Order: sequence, then C-alpha cells, then structure tokens
Amino acid sequence: MQDVQALPDARQVPVQRVGIKDLHLPIRVLQRDGHTQPVTATIALSVDLSSHDKGTHMSRFVELLEEWREQAWSARAIERLLADARRRLEAHSAHVNVRFQFFLDKDSPVTGQRSAMPYACRFTGSLTTAGVDLVTGVEVPMTTLCPCSKEISTVGAHSQRSWLRVKVRPVPGASLWLEDLITDLETHGSCEVYPLLKRPDEKYVTERAYHNPKFVEDVLRDAVVALRQLPDIAWFAAECEAAESIHAHNAFAFQQETLRSSTETATFHQNGVATPAVAKNVAAP
Amino acid sequence: MQDVQALPDARQVPVQRVGIKDLHLPIRVLQRDGHTQPVTATIALSVDLSSHDKGTHMSRFVELLEEWREQAWSARAIERLLADARRRLEAHSAHVNVRFQFFLDKDSPVTGQRSAMPYACRFTGSLTTAGVDLVTGVEVPMTTLCPCSKEISTVGAHSQRSWLRVKVRPVPGASLWLEDLITDLETHGSCEVYPLLKRPDEKYVTERAYHNPKFVEDVLRDAVVALRQLPDIAWFAAECEAAESIHAHNAFAFQQETLRSSTETATFHQNGVATPAVAKNVAAP
Amino acid sequence: MQDVQALPDARQVPVQRVGIKDLHLPIRVLQRDGHTQPVTATIALSVDLSSHDKGTHMSRFVELLEEWREQAWSARAIERLLADARRRLEAHSAHVNVRFQFFLDKDSPVTGQRSAMPYACRFTGSLTTAGVDLVTGVEVPMTTLCPCSKEISTVGAHSQRSWLRVKVRPVPGASLWLEDLITDLETHGSCEVYPLLKRPDEKYVTERAYHNPKFVEDVLRDAVVALRQLPDIAWFAAECEAAESIHAHNAFAFQQETLRSSTETATFHQNGVATPAVAKNVAAP
Amino acid sequence: MQDVQALPDARQVPVQRVGIKDLHLPIRVLQRDGHTQPVTATIALSVDLSSHDKGTHMSRFVELLEEWREQAWSARAIERLLADARRRLEAHSAHVNVRFQFFLDKDSPVTGQRSAMPYACRFTGSLTTAGVDLVTGVEVPMTTLCPCSKEISTVGAHSQRSWLRVKVRPVPGASLWLEDLITDLETHGSCEVYPLLKRPDEKYVTERAYHNPKFVEDVLRDAVVALRQLPDIAWFAAECEAAESIHAHNAFAFQQETLRSSTETATFHQNGVATPAVAKNVAAP
Repeated sequence: MQDVQALPDARQVPVQRVGIKDLHLPIRVLQRDGHTQPVTATIALSVDLSSHDKGTHMSRFVELLEEWREQAWSARAIERLLADARRRLEAHSAHVNVRFQFFLDKDSPVTGQRSAMPYACRFTGSLTTAGVDLVTGVEVPMTTLCPCSKEISTVGAHSQRSWLRVKVRPVPGASLWLEDLITDLETHGSCEVYPLLKRPDEKYVTERAYHNPKFVEDVLRDAVVALRQLPDIAWFAAECEAAESIHAHNAFAFQQETLRSSTETATFHQNGVATPAVAKNVAAP
Repeated sequence: MQDVQALPDARQVPVQRVGIKDLHLPIRVLQRDGHTQPVTATIALSVDLSSHDKGTHMSRFVELLEEWREQAWSARAIERLLADARRRLEAHSAHVNVRFQFFLDKDSPVTGQRSAMPYACRFTGSLTTAGVDLVTGVEVPMTTLCPCSKEISTVGAHSQRSWLRVKVRPVPGASLWLEDLITDLETHGSCEVYPLLKRPDEKYVTERAYHNPKFVEDVLRDAVVALRQLPDIAWFAAECEAAESIHAHNAFAFQQETLRSSTETATFHQNGVATPAVAKNVAAP
Repeated sequence: MQDVQALPDARQVPVQRVGIKDLHLPIRVLQRDGHTQPVTATIALSVDLSSHDKGTHMSRFVELLEEWREQAWSARAIERLLADARRRLEAHSAHVNVRFQFFLDKDSPVTGQRSAMPYACRFTGSLTTAGVDLVTGVEVPMTTLCPCSKEISTVGAHSQRSWLRVKVRPVPGASLWLEDLITDLETHGSCEVYPLLKRPDEKYVTERAYHNPKFVEDVLRDAVVALRQLPDIAWFAAECEAAESIHAHNAFAFQQETLRSSTETATFHQNGVATPAVAKNVAAP
Repeated sequence: MQDVQALPDARQVPVQRVGIKDLHLPIRVLQRDGHTQPVTATIALSVDLSSHDKGTHMSRFVELLEEWREQAWSARAIERLLADARRRLEAHSAHVNVRFQFFLDKDSPVTGQRSAMPYACRFTGSLTTAGVDLVTGVEVPMTTLCPCSKEISTVGAHSQRSWLRVKVRPVPGASLWLEDLITDLETHGSCEVYPLLKRPDEKYVTERAYHNPKFVEDVLRDAVVALRQLPDIAWFAAECEAAESIHAHNAFAFQQETLRSSTETATFHQNGVATPAVAKNVAAP
C-alpha cells in the first residue's frame, strides 16, 4: 500500500499553501481580564508544500487543531500554533485564519442596562522563513447619520446600520486586545449601537446621532486618525460600510496604511505571498 | 447493465418530493408590458416517487428546464411547466421554486432620474391530483423611520433599511403581475427607496420618512389591509423586517391570512404536504 | 412624552407575530450527560400583538434573553422561555427559533482518533392558547455514493458530501436529545463523515461507501423508516440533499409525516399559524 | 442650503477609496462570438477622495452605471468605465468590481446533450495615475477523485465537488475571454462537471474520474503549469477547493505568481494600494 502523498511529483511546482478550510471548532479566546471566552470558530490552516511531494498530510491539521482546543487562543498563541503546524507538517511556512463571534457586555448609555454585544473577529497569521506576521481583525456595527440629509432637510436625517471593519498588524513583539480595538473603534460612528435600549436610551442614541452626523468618509477618517496614534500598530486596513436606509445598495470608504516598518513586515512583503492573507477581511471592494 | 433507478424498492415508502435544487439557469420572465426580462434564476424542481421505484430520473429535470429556457416565464407558465414535469417523470405531483432578481425602472421622486431597482422575486408552484397551487413572492426594500424614536427625541428619529416580503396565492384562474405587487407594496414603508437620488430627492425622502414614521407593525398592518382588498388573492403571508440602525439585530412582524376558500386551495391543504412549499420565503421566523 | 407603542391602533389588525430576529447570543445547551455546552446562538423571538396596541416592546425580548443566558437550554427550557415571553409581553402567544452549531466528539472508525464534529441544530417553539408546540431540528452531514454510477461503471462510483436534515415534533411530554437524533440519523448515508481520518480510516470509509451505495431517495427512505419507529415522535419532516460531485447543482428528497395525533398538535394546526414555524429548516424546496 | 460633501475637511486625510457596493444591475457581457449575454451583476465602484473634500458624490456612481447598462461589458470596457468614473468624480483613481453568473452551453461527453452551465465570474479594475490594472476572475466547478483513497482501497475512491478559482492580470494591451479561461481551466480536475448527463455520460464521467485521480494539490499544479504557458498573463492567483465527501470541512491549495513584469503592474504595486483589490476573489485562505 503506497503512501500516495509522499510520492515524488514530476511537475516541479512547489505549492505556496495547502491545507484545510471551513473547519468549525469550539475554542476559547483569551480575554483581557485573563478569563477565556468559549467561541465557535471557523478555521483555515495551511502550509507550503515542496515540489518533491505530491500531497500534504491533511489529517495532521485536524489533529493539531484538536489538541489546541483547550488552549487560550490569542494573537500570541497563534504564533505558537503556526510553529507547531510548520513542525508537524515538515514545512517552511504555515498560515492560519480563525474567525469567530466575540461578545462584550455592554451597558446602555443612560439606564445602564447590560447585554451581550456580538463582534465578528478574526486572527490571521503567517509564519515563514522571513518571520512571523500576525493580523487581528474586528468588525464593529454602529449607527451613521447622513450629514447631507441633515443639512438639506427641514426635519430629520436618514440614519442606517453601518460597520467599521479594521485589520491591524502590530509591530513585532506587541499585541492588541480585541476588547481595546473594539472599544476604541465603536466610538467613531454617529452613535454606538446596543442590544438593549430602554426609552431614555433610545432618546439618547437618536439625539446623539443627530448631533453627530457622519458620512462613511468621516467614520473612516476618524478611524484612520485614531489608528495612526496607536503606538503598536505597523499597518492597518479599515473600511466603513453603510447599509443606506434610502437605497438598496451600500456606501463604503476604504483605507490602508503602513505606519511603521518592522523587520518582519518588511521582509514579509518581499516574498509577495502574504499580502492577500492579511487583507482578506477588509479588502478594498 | 441494470437501470438501477427503475428497480423495485422493498421499503414501501412513497416519497413526496424528489428532484434537483440550486440549479442556475438564464431564463426570461414575462413583464406586464408583454416584453420579457432576462434573469438569472435559481431553481428547485421535484416530483413524487412511487413506493415501487428506487429512484427518480434526475437528468429529466434538467432536460425539461433546458427546453423551457426560451419560454416567457410567469405564474401561468409555471402551471404548464409542472404539467410537463409530471408527465415526463410519470409522477402524480410536481413542485417548482424559481427565484430571481427582477428589475423595474424607477424614477426618483423629485428630479425624475430613472434607474434600475432590483427586487428579489419567486414563483412557487405545486401540481397534485388535488389541483394546482401557485404562489408568487416578492421582496421590497424600503425605509422605515421609528415612531417611538421620533416621539421621544427633541430632534431626529432613527431610520433604517427594511424589507416587506409578501407571498400571495391567487384565487383559481387569476394571476398577478410582479410589477403590480411591487408597486403596491413599496408604498407601505415610511418612504420608498431608490437607486439614484439627487439632492432634492434626498431632501424629499428624508422629510417624507420623518413625516410618515412606521414601526414594522405599521408596515405590516398597512400591507395586510391592502392585501385584503385585492380581489384575486386567496391567501397571503407577509413579513416586514427592519435592519435596526440602533441595534445589531433586526425587528420583524409577520402575518398570514386565508382570505377566500378555493377548491384547489382547500383540497390542497388537506393532503398536508403543500403548506411548507408556499411558506418558505415568508416563513414565520 | 407619549408611549407610542401603547397608543391605540385604528386599523383593527391583530398581528400574529412581532419581535426580534438575527440576535446573536452566547448560551449553554444541555447535553444528555448533564453538562452544558457553550454555543453561539442566532435567535428569533416574537409574540402576538393585540389590535388595540400600536407596537410591541422590543427591548423586553432582549431583556428576557439576557436573563436566560445562564440557563441550560433544551426543548423543555424553551417551553418555559415561551411562557416567560408571553407573560412579560402580555401576549397570548410566543414563538422562538434558536439556531446554533452543536459539537459531538466522534471517534474515527478504525484508529479511534477523537475529534469535534459540528452539527447545525435548532430548537423551535410556539406557545399559544391551544398549547405548546416544540420542534427540534438537526442537520447531519454524510457521504452518499451513487448506486446508478456504481452499477453502470466498470470501476468506481461518484460520491459526494450530503446532508440529512430532520425536524421532529415530540408527542406531548416527551423530549428528544440532540445527541440521540444525530447518532441515529448519521447512520443512514453510504458512510458517516468524520473530522479526522488516518489512512486505515480513509480506506474503511471509502470501501464502506462503495459497498453501501445510496441515492438521496434511499437515505430519505431509511430515515423515514427509522423515524416512524421512534415512539416519541408525533411529526417529522426530513430532507436529504446531495452536493452532486458530477454536477454543479444538488439532488434532494423530502418527506414529512404526521405519525400520531396529539392534543397540542391537532389544535395547533387548526389555527393555521404554526406550520410554517416548524417547517422552516426542512421546508419542501 | 450647503453642499455638505463639498465642505473642506479639517482632518487632512485623503481617502483611497470611496464609493458604492452591492449594487445589483442587469448588464450585458461581451462574448467571444461577438454577441452579448444578459447577466445580473453585483457591482462595487469607487474613487479616491482628496483631503480637501468632506465627501464624494455617491449618486454619480449610480448615474454612470445606469448609462453603462446598454454597453457590452468586457475587461476593455471596464477600462473605459474607470476613465469615465475618474472624470465624473474629479478623482485621481477609480476602482471597480463586477461579479456575475456567466453561462456557457456545454455538451455532455458521450451523448452530446447540450445544457447551460453557470460559472461565477468577475472583472476587477483600477485606474490610477500609475496606469490601469485589470484582473479577470473565474470559478470553475469540477470533480476531484482522491488518489490516496483509490490507492489504499480495494474498490472505489471518494470523489467530491471542487472548484478551481483563478484570477489573471493580462499583460498591458492584452485581454482574455472568459470562455477561453473557463474552457482551459475546467480540464484540470479529475473530470469536468455537466448540468445534464444521461446514463452513458454518467458512466463516462465516473470512469474518467477514477482513472484520473487528483488531489487539490494536483489540480492546482496542473493549473499553474497551464497558466505559466499563457503568453498574455502577467500575474495569476489560483485556488482549488474541494468539498471533501468524507469530511464536513474542505481541502484547498493556493498559489499566486508574477510571470512577467509590466510597466503598469510594476508601478501599480509600488503604491501599495491595489494588491488587495485584485486578490479578493482568490485570496489565500
């Protein structure tokens, strides 16, 4: 019985990434308070494949992830997971993408009612001979109220549900808490959104949005200004998208900036492989 | 070489529906003006299977649909397609579900700018020994502006993109144009939505919505009152869903009513099979 | 400041269902072993609305669910939740739909490697003046291998990923464990699927499927025969869908049967509202 | 009445991309035979925004697209559309992403039955001061049959529906027909898929796949070798993904290569903005 995967391959094509995707797994994400939060993750994990080998060992990815179920997942843990993947698969590089709904308890702005607010988050990482590259992504829902609509109308102004999606690559050695990113970013809309609003809260968010009108361009620019001031960020990509209440289509604004060079990052870009990995969530539409 | 599908089946279980789904097909939908509109349809087509037969003839569904590509599709044509399916598959009943984006040219409310507005539509039909059952479904996007938010706030009121989804079963012999259903239903929001709005249009829709606040309950009730007055409708299901701009979750209201009995409809309900087919688009959440 | 929701409504239209949907919430689902499993749920919750009231109290749904976060969720708990919703919203009926990924540890068939297998599950429930109606739904992935392809081909036979989706309504007082339903249903394909398969396992599943060819009709019929034998089931709907490897479209078979009458169920059907709620997951396509 | 969009913006942040997305539009795509095919497109269109302007003119995007409805869309037409967008919006750069289902008539391999086969396609383009960048993307479904499963099993081998997704950037001045890309790429699986297969066809595809086993790595490598030989391609990204019939998760292989330098492409990469745009469809997972 031949080990088909281990057969030599005549095409002489090394493959940049081979692995599994859309694997669902219950894992635990490390919170800033030291506790872990159980989440349902959707995971892609891959390695490079030498031109000498016909196939990779797909089952080893699942074995590895199964062993990692009880770990406290974080950007730092992702780095160790990648080293583990590279070692087990006897590869030169490893790549991972972990997406999940992360919850924060949020108090309503006036009555202080607490409820669980969901945020779509992801950890993305690559470990290559050039170093490690870790990117954290969050999606923050918010209200935007249109400045133009407010200006031209005698009463009212249309508002809509919008999302600010941000991916950040920390400088080497730094890490970022999802909680901090989320809490910072959700201030940039016309008003924050909440799961639970009593009537005094609804009055507050309505008036707050009306007095703080913002285009998607405004939300994006405010996020850009804030992200530039974070000392630990080497690169970011940000998109604000609004489900316009007066249209059936959406409006958006997008920006990505490299703020600081880092050995890892600089080297990483040169091999030309990694950029799409880190730009998948907040790709320029 | 045995014809496996034609083998007898020992389990003695007649199957209610066997067929294909998620087939994409370019078809033409009949418009009220007599022209046809090219659309990309997603189709499910099935028949019943006798307890004597192990399997149906899956390729015949595709053959049939392929021959129907050049037809002018409508609720009436669906009835003939079902008869065709039942005959070719030597079955007692046939069921079809055809979903597509349908476009209407729409003029902006003040400057009269014309642009193409998309509506998610569907034809659903069943032909059984009890008769034929045809249901037409449309989804109409609209703005809703919250009456409570307006009442409690000194300025402004939150608005959001909402959808009114309606399915109607005409009385026997009657048929309904998608254009008529859409044009009627999209009046029930706080304001209609448009693909193209210049500044005077945006002023109009903003103020119109502000002066016409509606809960999802209001939109639903107005739709119910309007649907009850249509003489040709035997049954409807309606849902209004709002992508609340102050929350990350949605609000909805749902109603279904049987307005008139019809031989087909009454008989149809008794066999207990058809209800889910007609309620799939606007199912009670 | 008026309480707009409490205003009288002139249209005289009682609304069957008003509430929230697409709310994400981290909850705990009761396992058969007495422990709870943390899951990320997507929830719809609604009540009826009297013709006298303009609107429902949307925030109360979130308050209620927030209090229920720490409960052990099950079909039985759903019944209490519905009673709670009806009481708090001062309504006559309440309806809920809870969807989540549920995981079972599964051992590979030969080497016994254990890994986490995901199943899309749901609890659906309605509480009306006629009684309570609880439906449990599971989706079980599996391999199907085509009997016709095997018969006509000198070697091989095409196989594909398929899903058996089942919804069951227990008889009054009975309840069903997700684990039992899943474990029973996943035996009905050509072979079960597993997250983690080593080479002896892959040999087993390949040969097992080849020796056990099944059409979607076969999977469905075997499921129907098995479901009929469960003593505690009053009604079921079942669908087998196959992502055919030789086509870009899917094949499916669907069946629903009422096995036993139950006071709740019988009465429930007469008001004509509930059927769509329980048939949403496994609706006839 | 102020023109709010035209107000100066104090933040001094030029925005890389501002525009609309998820706009549905019925358009016509140019075929190789000179005819056009009506498709339903989903479009994103954006431009850059100077630091001096508070907002862009969102309605102009819709106006432009509305005027383009009757054009014959192609990679070349995209270039003109981008120039049009840049001019109308008084911007330095413009970006577009057009996705649609494209159909080819396909004959079954033995009996020659003709039916419509759908392919998910896209045109992506950017026009900047550095030049124009056009990328064409296609997704081709296919069967893959596992070489390992075949080798280790005494009978049979598992097969599954798979997809080969490719994006290509032509060299300056060259263009590529969707038909040619699709027809070439769909040869790289274990067997092609077809909408309509009679029994002799099914025998053929079953045996063909069995005699031509391929991992996702094999499909990818064969596609890479073929893409390298196309003279008009400057860059490509390719992914093969398999909906494994023995698992609930997928396997994939990914590769991107720059084959030739081109003034446009080289310059384009230096500004660091464009890469995500062209890698969105086939991003490294």
